[in-house]
Amino acid sequence: MHTDFENYLAQQTDLPQETIRYISSLATARRAHRNEALLNAGEVCRHKIFIVSGLLRTYHIKPDGNEHILQFSNQHTWTLDVESYDKQIASLVNIAAVENSEVLMWKKPDFDLLLRDIPELKQFSERLISRNIYSNRNRILTILSGTPEERYADFVDAFPDYLSRMPLRMVAGYLGISLKTLTRIRHAQQQREAGIMDK
Amino acid sequence: MHTDFENYLAQQTDLPQETIRYISSLATARRAHRNEALLNAGEVCRHKIFIVSGLLRTYHIKPDGNEHILQFSNQHTWTLDVESYDKQIASLVNIAAVENSEVLMWKKPDFDLLLRDIPELKQFSERLISRNIYSNRNRILTILSGTPEERYADFVDAFPDYLSRMPLRMVAGYLGISLKTLTRIRHAQQQREAGIMDK
Repeated sequence: MHTDFENYLAQQTDLPQETIRYISSLATARRAHRNEALLNAGEVCRHKIFIVSGLLRTYHIKPDGNEHILQFSNQHTWTLDVESYDKQIASLVNIAAVENSEVLMWKKPDFDLLLRDIPELKQFSERLISRNIYSNRNRILTILSGTPEERYADFVDAFPDYLSRMPLRMVAGYLGISLKTLTRIRHAQQQREAGIMDK
Repeated sequence: MHTDFENYLAQQTDLPQETIRYISSLATARRAHRNEALLNAGEVCRHKIFIVSGLLRTYHIKPDGNEHILQFSNQHTWTLDVESYDKQIASLVNIAAVENSEVLMWKKPDFDLLLRDIPELKQFSERLISRNIYSNRNRILTILSGTPEERYADFVDAFPDYLSRMPLRMVAGYLGISLKTLTRIRHAQQQREAGIMDK
């Protein structure tokens, strides 16, 4: 797992190999089975997580039991509950594995020191934060303005492999629509596609 | 306008008065009438904007003419289209005044130099970015999981003065619901309140 991360960081930055190995050495490797939680709502998010392989989801469960998914985190991306991590307060969200996954985890005090001591890691981290800001803004716009059909089409475009990697209820929980609506959209689409094939 | 900003920055940071005056001196003051645009979709966002007084909105217009509001920016907050500004690419959103407003604007090259040369301004800026990330995440969760009634109640709680400062269609555009639904929710609420008053 550590080697995989070191290759990723060498590709993404100009950090010297020695520094990369040092950053990597401070991380703890962990395997998470499908559905296993890495963070539960109510706990403090104490780690920055890098996904070596697999897929995680960040979600919130409402009192009525409905699950709403803020974000999926694919391999070679980072995740955490940023507000809980920054302020060391209880998290409102859960982070769990969608499929069997391997992650590296840094404790906050360790990663804070890395950011302080390695300016290029700090710059890299700022680029990731910026990308996250862009994608959150676009997500707000999509949820606000897209019809369920448009939101589903965007999802399939953006993440063509996710449909086969998770149950439909998670797709619905990400799109903010009911499983019933999602099933209806998919059925209508299949009908249209079958119609085109017949011609 | 400049004095108002200087007082704000003196309250929010420990920057020396001289530095604050220097930061302020690089800004251009501008008045925007109600509905006047400060940024149009398709243009590059070239300025960081501080709202001295008034209220701005950041919004997107779909081809069907519907307006979806990403964000309101009240006095003593900052705004820009972050992706357009960072990358100097065409913006997907518009920024316009909801009511007569006064703003200060810094050109990107000037503000970049300030951030490079004044570490405490950079730290302050990072704190603002973090707050923005938290609020965007919470907004995604609210839109995904809240019923229209809950979203309206949250809005009134969070921004008690906004209802009297803007037309209802903007509130609907922010909540991601139709004006018809919003009117129905408000009517039902008034009925309930009238019922309570009768007892």
